[in-house]
Amino acid sequence: MTRASVVGVGMTKFGTHDITLAELFAEAALPALDDAGVGRGDVDALYFGNTLGGMTENDTHLAPKVATHTGFGRIPAQRFEDACATSTNAFKHAVQAVENGIHDVVLVGGVEKCTPVTGIDTPEMTRIFVSAADRQYEQPTGITFPGVFALMTKRHMEQYGTTEEQLAEIAVKNHAHGTHNPRAHFGKDTSIEAVLDSPLVVDPFHLMDCCPFSDGGSAAVVVSDEYADSFDAPVDVTGLGHGTDLVPVSDKADPLATQAARDAAERAYDQAGITAGEVDFCEVHDCFTGAEVLATEALGFVEDGEGGPAAAAGRTALGGDIPVNPSGGLKAKGHPIGATGTAQIVELTEQLRDEAGDRQVESPSVGLAHNLGGDTGSAFVTTMEERA
Amino acid sequence: MTRASVVGVGMTKFGTHDITLAELFAEAALPALDDAGVGRGDVDALYFGNTLGGMTENDTHLAPKVATHTGFGRIPAQRFEDACATSTNAFKHAVQAVENGIHDVVLVGGVEKCTPVTGIDTPEMTRIFVSAADRQYEQPTGITFPGVFALMTKRHMEQYGTTEEQLAEIAVKNHAHGTHNPRAHFGKDTSIEAVLDSPLVVDPFHLMDCCPFSDGGSAAVVVSDEYADSFDAPVDVTGLGHGTDLVPVSDKADPLATQAARDAAERAYDQAGITAGEVDFCEVHDCFTGAEVLATEALGFVEDGEGGPAAAAGRTALGGDIPVNPSGGLKAKGHPIGATGTAQIVELTEQLRDEAGDRQVESPSVGLAHNLGGDTGSAFVTTMEERA
Repeated sequence: MTRASVVGVGMTKFGTHDITLAELFAEAALPALDDAGVGRGDVDALYFGNTLGGMTENDTHLAPKVATHTGFGRIPAQRFEDACATSTNAFKHAVQAVENGIHDVVLVGGVEKCTPVTGIDTPEMTRIFVSAADRQYEQPTGITFPGVFALMTKRHMEQYGTTEEQLAEIAVKNHAHGTHNPRAHFGKDTSIEAVLDSPLVVDPFHLMDCCPFSDGGSAAVVVSDEYADSFDAPVDVTGLGHGTDLVPVSDKADPLATQAARDAAERAYDQAGITAGEVDFCEVHDCFTGAEVLATEALGFVEDGEGGPAAAAGRTALGGDIPVNPSGGLKAKGHPIGATGTAQIVELTEQLRDEAGDRQVESPSVGLAHNLGGDTGSAFVTTMEERA
Repeated sequence: MTRASVVGVGMTKFGTHDITLAELFAEAALPALDDAGVGRGDVDALYFGNTLGGMTENDTHLAPKVATHTGFGRIPAQRFEDACATSTNAFKHAVQAVENGIHDVVLVGGVEKCTPVTGIDTPEMTRIFVSAADRQYEQPTGITFPGVFALMTKRHMEQYGTTEEQLAEIAVKNHAHGTHNPRAHFGKDTSIEAVLDSPLVVDPFHLMDCCPFSDGGSAAVVVSDEYADSFDAPVDVTGLGHGTDLVPVSDKADPLATQAARDAAERAYDQAGITAGEVDFCEVHDCFTGAEVLATEALGFVEDGEGGPAAAAGRTALGGDIPVNPSGGLKAKGHPIGATGTAQIVELTEQLRDEAGDRQVESPSVGLAHNLGGDTGSAFVTTMEERA
């Protein structure tokens, strides 16, 4: 079943961009319109994601601002914020809007600036990032997101025997994939030794187990199934599940389950009428190497506890059973918070069109994106397929 | 035509609340559930608005957080931010969700803390509020929102002869209405003399022309038309228009038109199949007395230029042709930014149920809410009617 189709995509290089949020978004949005072959006047609504702009640049009410700058200032425009899952929630609502005949052609995307170009130093930016953690029970302890995911990963190591070397294999794989992505923040290879020798951030994560924070924008043009055939190269959205779990971590029934992702995956697979085994490749939210382990298990690509060994065996690399993060993932491609979700949609679209160059998965029919927010309190799973 | 129905509402007193955002939201949400007669387990999704929490309390990713605290942590939860129109955008999406069969029963609402209980003093809070103004072209000039609306109001005075006394009449009327609202931030009468003698904030606005910023929460339970009859006292949402205008003010074709409101009103009237003349009362976004003048004109209740004289003649007071802000409006009831939009929905619901006590409009059939964001860059118009 098709819910909606993506008919155009665009994204900036992820890295450092010292231009305004509106300018940066336009550098993704206008190429997406060009890719779709639609003009500004054809766009009926904007679904927009940004996470940190209020805190980093005193810039809120961004939806009308970026709509004005991009040249369609009088269409309904709305901003979403759901931590690192921000722009996939915008995408969910964009898909629902065209699916239900509310709009015919919508632009969806996100933008973020997280590097020191905002004028904010690392300690202050660390305080801002942790705003997504529980304000009363987690922030006062001094925990940060590397700490949150380290707690979950340490427990996984204890429970299943996952090793630091297996985690490092994920970093090496994603950096290898990223060397083929010209828009990656860090498009260079690394090695197991380099990962394990990099500074310890929080046990068990070394610096090279952690994704960077990046500046970037991403965008997609979404139309209804009914309109899709009038565009070149539409790619269908077949499933889109949204799960929410309890916050803080201590309230979760089983932190290793990342239950929001399981709920989201179940909904997406059910909508698409597929099983995990039918997915040809995926983009998952590897903010830390340990998060990729948890994601591959929650999505059903491997059994619980097998995420580490599967990566170490090469099963999740390009050419493996289920290539994970052919784009390089958050780890190598980068993580501009509010732009990350729709950037995954960009990668799925390009892969399913066989336009991914040297990082192309072999003739994929079904792709999946997994985007989480906060301490896994929000999760979205999207399945996309070649148009029949 | 009915798009959806509101079957339960709740709100806190607006004023000063030194509890957490999640606690404050629960004090609106749980009464809304009780009013609807639904349990936590009956709610399928949360549509939530908050504007400033990241900047004032370093608290983002609030949708899962407030869902957890309110007792339904595993339903899809999303946060909207569109400046002062934040929770009406959440309401728009809640209405669309039930209208299109995505969910059966949804909770929608918003919360904000703007008073010094956040630990932030007035100059710093002023900087935070102005984040909704254009970051590149307006903020560097030092303009604040009183200044933005003063510019528009001065031009209205020049073009139409609107007077400071007419503006003061609006403050007096809304404070008089507010004396009948036990949840109003400032539920006491004022006088023309007191308004004109209050300190000048920015010409032509005296302190008493400006709404306060408040702490508060508001919430509503929304169900589809199909389900509404199984609830006591449903009130129908018949129209919901969303308009966006160019930002900054200098880009707008005609600042006095507040075009986003005109676009939103046209869409709402068209959906509801009514004209402005059929509306029995309204809640409008009177962040400043001048904003109420512009709103009554944009909504078609009076001719352009007649907003001031209409107020001075008592046409917009309780008992007049078209009572405006029977709740006291933002001016007297208060303005907890992200809670203001759904608080208007609460007032419409209570009025249409004839449950508004001493501020009750006489047997209303049709109510309208007008909520704007930023420099009028976002606007929402909602029409609600007694269920046939």
